[in-house]
Amino acid sequence: MSERLTAIYHVTATAASIEARAHGIAVEQSVEMPVEGIDDAHVLNDIVGRVEAIADLGTGRFEVRIGLATATIANEAGQLFNMLFGNTSIQDGIDLVDAELPASLVDAFPGPNLGTAGLRALAGAPARALTSGALKPQGLPPAGLAAIAARMAEGGIDLIKDDHGLADQPYSPFIDRVDAVTDALENIAARSGHRTHYLPSLSGNLDAMRAQIRHGLARGIPAFLIAPLIAGMPSFATVVREFPAAGFMTHPTLSGIARIAPPLFYGKLFRMIGADAVVYPNHGGRFGYSPATCTSLAAAARAPWRAIKPSLPVPAGGMTQARIGEMLDFYGPDTIVLIGGALLATRERLTHEVEAFVSTVARHAFA
Amino acid sequence: MSERLTAIYHVTATAASIEARAHGIAVEQSVEMPVEGIDDAHVLNDIVGRVEAIADLGTGRFEVRIGLATATIANEAGQLFNMLFGNTSIQDGIDLVDAELPASLVDAFPGPNLGTAGLRALAGAPARALTSGALKPQGLPPAGLAAIAARMAEGGIDLIKDDHGLADQPYSPFIDRVDAVTDALENIAARSGHRTHYLPSLSGNLDAMRAQIRHGLARGIPAFLIAPLIAGMPSFATVVREFPAAGFMTHPTLSGIARIAPPLFYGKLFRMIGADAVVYPNHGGRFGYSPATCTSLAAAARAPWRAIKPSLPVPAGGMTQARIGEMLDFYGPDTIVLIGGALLATRERLTHEVEAFVSTVARHAFA
Repeated sequence: MSERLTAIYHVTATAASIEARAHGIAVEQSVEMPVEGIDDAHVLNDIVGRVEAIADLGTGRFEVRIGLATATIANEAGQLFNMLFGNTSIQDGIDLVDAELPASLVDAFPGPNLGTAGLRALAGAPARALTSGALKPQGLPPAGLAAIAARMAEGGIDLIKDDHGLADQPYSPFIDRVDAVTDALENIAARSGHRTHYLPSLSGNLDAMRAQIRHGLARGIPAFLIAPLIAGMPSFATVVREFPAAGFMTHPTLSGIARIAPPLFYGKLFRMIGADAVVYPNHGGRFGYSPATCTSLAAAARAPWRAIKPSLPVPAGGMTQARIGEMLDFYGPDTIVLIGGALLATRERLTHEVEAFVSTVARHAFA
Repeated sequence: MSERLTAIYHVTATAASIEARAHGIAVEQSVEMPVEGIDDAHVLNDIVGRVEAIADLGTGRFEVRIGLATATIANEAGQLFNMLFGNTSIQDGIDLVDAELPASLVDAFPGPNLGTAGLRALAGAPARALTSGALKPQGLPPAGLAAIAARMAEGGIDLIKDDHGLADQPYSPFIDRVDAVTDALENIAARSGHRTHYLPSLSGNLDAMRAQIRHGLARGIPAFLIAPLIAGMPSFATVVREFPAAGFMTHPTLSGIARIAPPLFYGKLFRMIGADAVVYPNHGGRFGYSPATCTSLAAAARAPWRAIKPSLPVPAGGMTQARIGEMLDFYGPDTIVLIGGALLATRERLTHEVEAFVSTVARHAFA
């Protein structure tokens, strides 16, 4: 008997067609050929996907549980996604909603390098929620971005993450930007004693990312922003393993909507590969996640799970100062509250608005 | 004035809301912050996205054309996707349907290394469609896969691509598989004079792929299968540039999670980065692409386009021997006809079925 994971899909089908549909997924996500053409007993017994259960959810949707051999994944991050949802992602009416992964597969991935405790230690905040701003807009030179970062740091914010659009453009090369922002934040820390941490956005191929991380670590930067759908899962997994002192905040850009359930995608899979903090679109912002999705996502990111450290949820995407209290009540303190554009839009009041943001988070009385 | 590309989205909206929605996309895909918060003239004039046109498509959908500064892409493959569709991919009711790219951006990417002419030269087939099988099932050891490849090669097939699930699993390590299949195909070529080319599937991180390609090239393998959504666009772009003698056939696995129109995704963007041949789900198979989508995709892959060589469309996903004539009439000769599982399901008749497949393609009289 080979070891199997269980992938759970929601499928649009009729009662008459669902068995064939479920069998089709089991084959698509394993051998991808007619089973009648296979005579090898090992392949038939241990590799071909198996329909474990089908449940009628009503309204024309069915939950299908498929057992997939973990041997096909070979403990590799890209292959994990390929085997969970590869070709099936292209088929109409099928969502990947969850996955139950055996301990040996989970244990083969490192999970977050820093985890919640590590990020809290960085911020010197053992119990409260962490605060983060975003460095924008795209198009400013390093000095312009550093000036904005400085004004947020003067307000006492914990973290400043790059906008995910900031890459290694000629108008703002990664190294120049990191140097300019780091210099600015060091000056403020020397004056105020408060150290704001900068998370620059990684881009380009694996070699470029390695060079960016090395430069950042040398400048005292403890954590980085990475977009796994742009970088590729194998590159994300590689930098997590190669730089165990570095933290990684993931950005969801290009991850599409809802074909992989966000609690699984960000809360389990990104975390397993190595996300210390996961940015995702909070309910009620510019994107369409429901409150229930957000609750499940945060719960998945924080749940005890073998040796995998917990990740901090980073609800974002159009958050404003007016929502801070509501977000803290909704998410509790194991959260990074990220306010991006709405802070920057306050222009000359930026430092004052950050002070108010930081103070609201620090003083919040949880119900 | 900065140079701009035009990204074209289809958006679900009301007539009353579409202007705000379009403006929202222009901001989301450029500076991602309230424009009121920006005072830098260069950013306002040259970087902030611009709504160029809005057209009512009826039925509650609108076509929105957004001008995006190419400077934000910095000629990098990952950033190309990030800027075209990153955060917008997470929003409900928005598809990226096309992109008009200025010459300078197109010219910064190499396109296919071999192109249609190069693949035709490999197969010794200057005019007819090319034939391809798929090596499966997942789970067989190298010797078992090599035996299946040999039986397809004896039938005279041009190309054998790995199943995209074949990675570097302990039961079939990449190098052992490549060696076993190459030995088998060389033996048959020595006997028959017909050389079938094997396209093994690349997996793992960039370093692993580089090692796989080096090993393959050393064994005389001219082209490789790569799944850009698994590998990551930056890794795909990197191996295309680093190995100009190698060809690359792309596989669409996991691409369903991004709602990008297939003619743009495979026919333009994959081609621009370096796909010599693009596998995609043909209409009437296991997936839901329409005939019109397939026609547009093939046209985009083949169209004259600056210095970018044409790619060969590879319609696939449940194709059968019975459809060969219809597929040739539909697509014409600049096509790779790929029949995977249906050939393998014929078991002991495999070589005979491949002979018939090859003969049907060679003798096809185009209307």
